[in-house]
Amino acid sequence: MSFELHPRLDKSTHFIGKSGTCRVLLKDNATFPWLIVVPETAADIEDLHELPADQFAEVVFLIRQVSQFMSDYFQPEKLNVACIGNIVRQMHIHLVGRFSDDPAWPGTVWADVPKRPYEADDVIEICVKARLLLGLSGEA
Amino acid sequence: MSFELHPRLDKSTHFIGKSGTCRVLLKDNATFPWLIVVPETAADIEDLHELPADQFAEVVFLIRQVSQFMSDYFQPEKLNVACIGNIVRQMHIHLVGRFSDDPAWPGTVWADVPKRPYEADDVIEICVKARLLLGLSGEA
Repeated sequence: MSFELHPRLDKSTHFIGKSGTCRVLLKDNATFPWLIVVPETAADIEDLHELPADQFAEVVFLIRQVSQFMSDYFQPEKLNVACIGNIVRQMHIHLVGRFSDDPAWPGTVWADVPKRPYEADDVIEICVKARLLLGLSGEA
Repeated sequence: MSFELHPRLDKSTHFIGKSGTCRVLLKDNATFPWLIVVPETAADIEDLHELPADQFAEVVFLIRQVSQFMSDYFQPEKLNVACIGNIVRQMHIHLVGRFSDDPAWPGTVWADVPKRPYEADDVIEICVKARLLLGLSGEA
């Protein structure tokens, strides 16, 4: 299946790696630990429950693994996991580590929140660790 | 296990039914089709990935079923599914049907959005349909 990452997701993230049919991305916002899982699906499949049963299982168990990685690596106080997609309809699941002293707390991060691009070294550090610990492939 | 629904969840919802270890609730806000799944867990388990593997599987497949019900019954343009819990830490998963003419579109519903309590007849209608189609028990 030919799959093109939505230009808005592509532009706002760094590619970490791939697991099965899913891409794992790092949101380029150092204000929050923020990873995004993008299942490669047909364009008309926008909601999680519309995934075929086997891909649904794959996606939710990857979400569990990525959550565990984020919990271990960033040690947030709370993890926010959400599939929204009202604007960018290509299915993508947000995983955001939250701290009670972060600038959006206790609200969500999908409103108007501060954005601060990562330093290149930090991107490399996170991507290498995540790819290794999650066993991701480096090929998109 | 003794489990008490958080008072804020209890106060803002109607009980629809129970499936396995999960309660399914109707948020008392007729502005959006909005159901909430509450897994009965130990109080220190706040994030989805912290659920034991078998309960995690149970919860995500119930989310899939409830999503399908909401899609069929309310026919939203998009479904928002999220586990946030920054304020009410008791684990709960939101499922919200969204329409491009709803008052929060295209933003999320966790900011300051209009609230309109349901009419009693509408609550009964939704709860009966959901309990029947999802095979939920009426006992909490």
